[in-house]
Amino acid sequence: MEEQIDSVGKAFVDHYYHLFDNDRPAMSSLYQPTSMLTFEGQKLQGVEDIVTKLTQLPFDQCRHVISTVDSQPASVTGGIVVFVSGSLQLPGENHPLQFSQMFHFSPTPQGNFFVLNDIFRLNY
Amino acid sequence: MEEQIDSVGKAFVDHYYHLFDNDRPAMSSLYQPTSMLTFEGQKLQGVEDIVTKLTQLPFDQCRHVISTVDSQPASVTGGIVVFVSGSLQLPGENHPLQFSQMFHFSPTPQGNFFVLNDIFRLNY
Repeated sequence: MEEQIDSVGKAFVDHYYHLFDNDRPAMSSLYQPTSMLTFEGQKLQGVEDIVTKLTQLPFDQCRHVISTVDSQPASVTGGIVVFVSGSLQLPGENHPLQFSQMFHFSPTPQGNFFVLNDIFRLNY
Repeated sequence: MEEQIDSVGKAFVDHYYHLFDNDRPAMSSLYQPTSMLTFEGQKLQGVEDIVTKLTQLPFDQCRHVISTVDSQPASVTGGIVVFVSGSLQLPGENHPLQFSQMFHFSPTPQGNFFVLNDIFRLNY
């Protein structure tokens, strides 16, 4: 069970950043109307507001490099909480930005997961 | 509701680090048997294992200084997820250590909260 949580958490995180770095509008598939994103202190809720925020960030291209992924079962409802640390490489920047991000993945009736909670912070 | 989540999250975080910095054995009051802590990648579960880990860290005194606290409601069950960034000052160290930590606070039948999920990472 513990290994399963780790592999599910890591697979979802890989999928999230793959979409972020390669097809940001497709991240709408990760969220639902109840989803929340807090991005550098700015609070957004719902698929449209969240994806609008993500697609309008002031850079077109980026690359996330993951350093650590820690996963835990969130509750008896089958959710997973995941904590990620890594770096974000932006075009024209010599030094990557360090970031930390947490997710709460919640199960869908169809047996998939969506992002219920998403909190992102750059590490200064 | 949103302001209430923020103030509950911040109050619990303040309480957590106050106990950590001043009375670490009393942190047993924050956890329950289902609680999980992942500390720098090491997984622990349950009050005794978690508090043993925290009280046996290789420093007796420390001081957490909080930089950011981001809170969101976690689910319809009344939980809260909180993401914290800050620094940890250890005795004899000139430079504080930067850290990030996430919590999932879950409600108790008595109307309080306990720490269901706790993930800590130093930022390198």
